[in-house]
Amino acid sequence: MPVDVPALALALDLLGTFVFGLSGGTLAVRRGLDLVGVLALSVAAALAGGMLRDVLLGATPVAALADARYLLAALGAGLVAFLATPLVQRLGKPVMAFDALGLGLFAVTGCRKALAYGLDPPAALLLGVLTAVGGGVVRDLLVAEVPRVLREEVYALAALVGAAVVVTGEALGWAEPPVTLGGVAAAFVLRVVSVRRGWSAPRSPWS
Amino acid sequence: MPVDVPALALALDLLGTFVFGLSGGTLAVRRGLDLVGVLALSVAAALAGGMLRDVLLGATPVAALADARYLLAALGAGLVAFLATPLVQRLGKPVMAFDALGLGLFAVTGCRKALAYGLDPPAALLLGVLTAVGGGVVRDLLVAEVPRVLREEVYALAALVGAAVVVTGEALGWAEPPVTLGGVAAAFVLRVVSVRRGWSAPRSPWS
Amino acid sequence: MPVDVPALALALDLLGTFVFGLSGGTLAVRRGLDLVGVLALSVAAALAGGMLRDVLLGATPVAALADARYLLAALGAGLVAFLATPLVQRLGKPVMAFDALGLGLFAVTGCRKALAYGLDPPAALLLGVLTAVGGGVVRDLLVAEVPRVLREEVYALAALVGAAVVVTGEALGWAEPPVTLGGVAAAFVLRVVSVRRGWSAPRSPWS
Repeated sequence: MPVDVPALALALDLLGTFVFGLSGGTLAVRRGLDLVGVLALSVAAALAGGMLRDVLLGATPVAALADARYLLAALGAGLVAFLATPLVQRLGKPVMAFDALGLGLFAVTGCRKALAYGLDPPAALLLGVLTAVGGGVVRDLLVAEVPRVLREEVYALAALVGAAVVVTGEALGWAEPPVTLGGVAAAFVLRVVSVRRGWSAPRSPWS
Repeated sequence: MPVDVPALALALDLLGTFVFGLSGGTLAVRRGLDLVGVLALSVAAALAGGMLRDVLLGATPVAALADARYLLAALGAGLVAFLATPLVQRLGKPVMAFDALGLGLFAVTGCRKALAYGLDPPAALLLGVLTAVGGGVVRDLLVAEVPRVLREEVYALAALVGAAVVVTGEALGWAEPPVTLGGVAAAFVLRVVSVRRGWSAPRSPWS
Repeated sequence: MPVDVPALALALDLLGTFVFGLSGGTLAVRRGLDLVGVLALSVAAALAGGMLRDVLLGATPVAALADARYLLAALGAGLVAFLATPLVQRLGKPVMAFDALGLGLFAVTGCRKALAYGLDPPAALLLGVLTAVGGGVVRDLLVAEVPRVLREEVYALAALVGAAVVVTGEALGWAEPPVTLGGVAAAFVLRVVSVRRGWSAPRSPWS
């Protein structure tokens, strides 16, 4: 039986949205927010990156609102985080892995959409990274914390590598499915390995 | 004499803008900001929710800039907060009531505009809530605080109920004026009663 | 030899972008962020004001992404801040002067673009100020601090004066180059003099 690629891509995208939503919801529970706050942080973490991408491109109404399944995935993640926080936390490792998958997927789809809108490679790389990390930035700002992506770990760098695979593949005219797969895999592997090994980005000699 | 409905709606909308602006301006005075900061927080609290709605929909240039009366209402509120802080604070109860009115009006108009742009009901509900609470979120972020809407009280829920009346009314084909009135009234009453009774949204058993 | 006005304007605009980027990068180094954080704050400080302007106007894809030189100028500033922090800090006075120049340039170009999109004068003034100070606001929010523009000094006011020169000039039908020059100079002089003399905006009698 052949694999249905668009259906698989949608399923992975919704899965990435759900896992990003879990990260927002569990943070909200840890900070003592009420149900509204938990759902708000789930939605922000899951959808803000894609919204930022679409708003900067002018692709409006933004995709996260035009297709209700994304919103429902984000809200579902918030409910799970609200009702089953200990379960989500015990699943720390799988959630980290899905988060790395979401990071790669969002970086690749964000970068590809930017290229489709005619942006040149540096801007498309930036937009790929923004799509992937924007939700986490808004999530952390909403609880008045310095966004974690700015403080530690090879998170934005993994997104950048995933987007770079897309830019390279499009420049060289490679077929879309293997480039997508390669970009997601590169971001995923770099992220997971960096967490395992405790890698972090360099600091200024002057800081 | 028949009531001039659009003129009444505009007057209420500007009143909502003004009262939201008061909430930003008085917060800025309490935090010791200068005149520029007071006006900035008034403008942010009064206009950011509608700007966010229009940017996500692609309704640009955003309405808050296309019609100068909104900006003037927001700046006027900032000046009043700057010059007459004790008066505004003594008027706490009326201001709370007008704020609840603004909340309902913004939720209803935001939700209706989203439906007019072709969004489906879940996304239109989200956009109604964002329109109503977005200004308060930006206001609080600008003074580096966790947005109050995430921490306490039945605020976003009241906006959601107001928006839900609009979605229901449009789905059932009811006439616009009574639906608008019903949505604003529902949000207003729920908000005011919740403040009186000290209701709050539930917290996670795990927080 | 006649001066090439558009080339000069572009050079000044890129210079303003670079200096705004320095302000973001050095703040990130002071807060102990890693390389990713330094580049992110450079990009935010340099480009977020113009992005905000274009998103509110609907001028998309936003100019900061459509022309890669802006992004490269911002990233270059981040690298300089990362590698040569003490040098940048020793250059405090020239950097302040360039920042004042960037402030004037961004206020003037933001205001002019708003008028070209049909906004009326109050909204164009607001957008000029937002273009000039928006990057600094996002920069400070990303490290969880109350934006400096809200707390001190004649910063937003200088941008407002620069934008007001443009609105006045366009209303009176004056030629564009002298109006641009006058607006930038007015903002620059007011900003530099206010820093020298320690001027600040008034505070509410009630704060």
